[in-house]
Amino acid sequence: MYETLALVGATGAVGRIVLQQLQERKFPYKRLKLLASERSVGKEVRVNGESIKIELLAPGAFKNIDLVIASTPDEISRDFAPYAVEEGAVVVDESGYWRMDPTVPLIIPEVNPDAIDNHKGIIASPNCSTTQMVVALAPLHQAAGVKRVVVSTYQATSGAGLAGTEELNDSTRSALTGKTYPPKTFQYPIGFNLIPQIGSEKQDGYTSEEMKMVYETRKIMGDENIQVCPTAVRVPVAIGHSESILVETEKPLTTIEARRLFEDAPGITVVDDLDNQQYPMPRDCEGKDDVFVGRIRRDISGGNGIAFWCVSDNLRKGAATNAVQIAELLVKRSAAAAK
Amino acid sequence: MYETLALVGATGAVGRIVLQQLQERKFPYKRLKLLASERSVGKEVRVNGESIKIELLAPGAFKNIDLVIASTPDEISRDFAPYAVEEGAVVVDESGYWRMDPTVPLIIPEVNPDAIDNHKGIIASPNCSTTQMVVALAPLHQAAGVKRVVVSTYQATSGAGLAGTEELNDSTRSALTGKTYPPKTFQYPIGFNLIPQIGSEKQDGYTSEEMKMVYETRKIMGDENIQVCPTAVRVPVAIGHSESILVETEKPLTTIEARRLFEDAPGITVVDDLDNQQYPMPRDCEGKDDVFVGRIRRDISGGNGIAFWCVSDNLRKGAATNAVQIAELLVKRSAAAAK
Repeated sequence: MYETLALVGATGAVGRIVLQQLQERKFPYKRLKLLASERSVGKEVRVNGESIKIELLAPGAFKNIDLVIASTPDEISRDFAPYAVEEGAVVVDESGYWRMDPTVPLIIPEVNPDAIDNHKGIIASPNCSTTQMVVALAPLHQAAGVKRVVVSTYQATSGAGLAGTEELNDSTRSALTGKTYPPKTFQYPIGFNLIPQIGSEKQDGYTSEEMKMVYETRKIMGDENIQVCPTAVRVPVAIGHSESILVETEKPLTTIEARRLFEDAPGITVVDDLDNQQYPMPRDCEGKDDVFVGRIRRDISGGNGIAFWCVSDNLRKGAATNAVQIAELLVKRSAAAAK
Repeated sequence: MYETLALVGATGAVGRIVLQQLQERKFPYKRLKLLASERSVGKEVRVNGESIKIELLAPGAFKNIDLVIASTPDEISRDFAPYAVEEGAVVVDESGYWRMDPTVPLIIPEVNPDAIDNHKGIIASPNCSTTQMVVALAPLHQAAGVKRVVVSTYQATSGAGLAGTEELNDSTRSALTGKTYPPKTFQYPIGFNLIPQIGSEKQDGYTSEEMKMVYETRKIMGDENIQVCPTAVRVPVAIGHSESILVETEKPLTTIEARRLFEDAPGITVVDDLDNQQYPMPRDCEGKDDVFVGRIRRDISGGNGIAFWCVSDNLRKGAATNAVQIAELLVKRSAAAAK
């Protein structure tokens, strides 16, 4: 049923990895169409040994397309997704535009696969910082009920696309040679610096990135009572978002129980041996699909809390991998329904 | 009364700034002696236009010395402080060795100046990550009673001394040119990476650096009931520790009240205007003595909480400045007592 596939935004930081993943994971498509804005039209991209020419993203482009995976800015998605659906395609969308739409399922396949059945043509993949956090929280939620989360992020520059990583390298080189660097992508030079703002002010002093971690978490976990206090910070790391998380649960969890829940959960790799200096770090998680959890310990400030450290490749599970997994889930469900 | 001054560790990352500060702040000493281990003996250091030769740190060195400011590793302080006191000096010590000794006051002059009167010869300056946090918490504690603190740190490499900053530069250069870098000072290459371990495992999965933030905070604020859940992380920034802090108070505080308390407190500069992209960042706090506070907002996860972001030059208020301020406090108190 999902035999013809279109990719929107294939030349971006995430789109490139979606293409890689489709090949690596042997996604069962028969025909692949690459769509982009005028700027990229006509460029050729090698996929599985064949060369595919990028075509224009415009009404009509989705006729005879079953499935779309899209990595675009919000406004692009707002504009194309409705006509893609009208033309008969199902859209797996990585932008922020549709995520909180009540008619759009927001899916992490390990966490809420069943919600996908209610889709009306668009399925959203969550924000990168939310995805890795919710993958980690899900097994604790199921076992003990997550009440409250205090999270501080350490987010990589590639979250702002290829330009973000380029700016990290350029501003770092400038700093090393004592030159000033005029920032373009970020608010300030990010080399050897931290910027405690991702997105613009959204609500009560929280940024849009931070509020995504509140609202998307509740929607994915299906629990409007989960409270989240987020702080989102850009750090001079190219790939791999890290998060310092304190989670309070209804039912108390011991450190040993929490570690076992993490270990048994799909999509999580536990790296947790402080005495032997083993914990997740961005440099070790780059290019990997899992969410890595370590520094698991009891909250020593009271409450039924577990503190932990969580790292994941923001371009992979935070974006491309999750979108491809959603597409795989659609294929699996439609195959099961056809039986 | 404090006319002859000795500096121990004057050539280190912090010692250099102590020397600068003594000059900038016109510390009223008459004679200055520089002491170090054998390796540095004989080197000459320019202070206020005169050249001072470094002498050997050994028993007898503190005869006729009134006041010592020491920036050394813990073991060095453990060894020399007792004989310095015996020889008649008062030691302001920046190492971790004496801080939790019940006979040693642990002082931040803005927070607990009165505790200095109980000293028995040694006065300790707190750990860098603790100092800036407690400077920020103190006005909230006085107004509303701090119950609980959840803190995640973003700590600069200079916290590990000159070698730490050198390693940041070298490992960053290696990463930029695709070379591997064998770490010496840190556990792993720190360039474009994060290391969620500072110090070794101390207690229940928390590191020594993290437990300092628990115990030292209680001692300085004089309240054993304050609960702290810390996560300490090394980031690829040369100078300036940053902290994402959530504080819960007995009495509720509005964001406006919290901001006013920060603004009125000594040693704090508020930089807090998200709409205009104003918040503290390491690059802006380097070389400054204050603790910078921004991103002040209500905890939206329940509880009487205020979330904020706090940055300070770890070599200054986190170390050298606080030590020199302790010395100034001693001078002021002894002048007042002499009246």
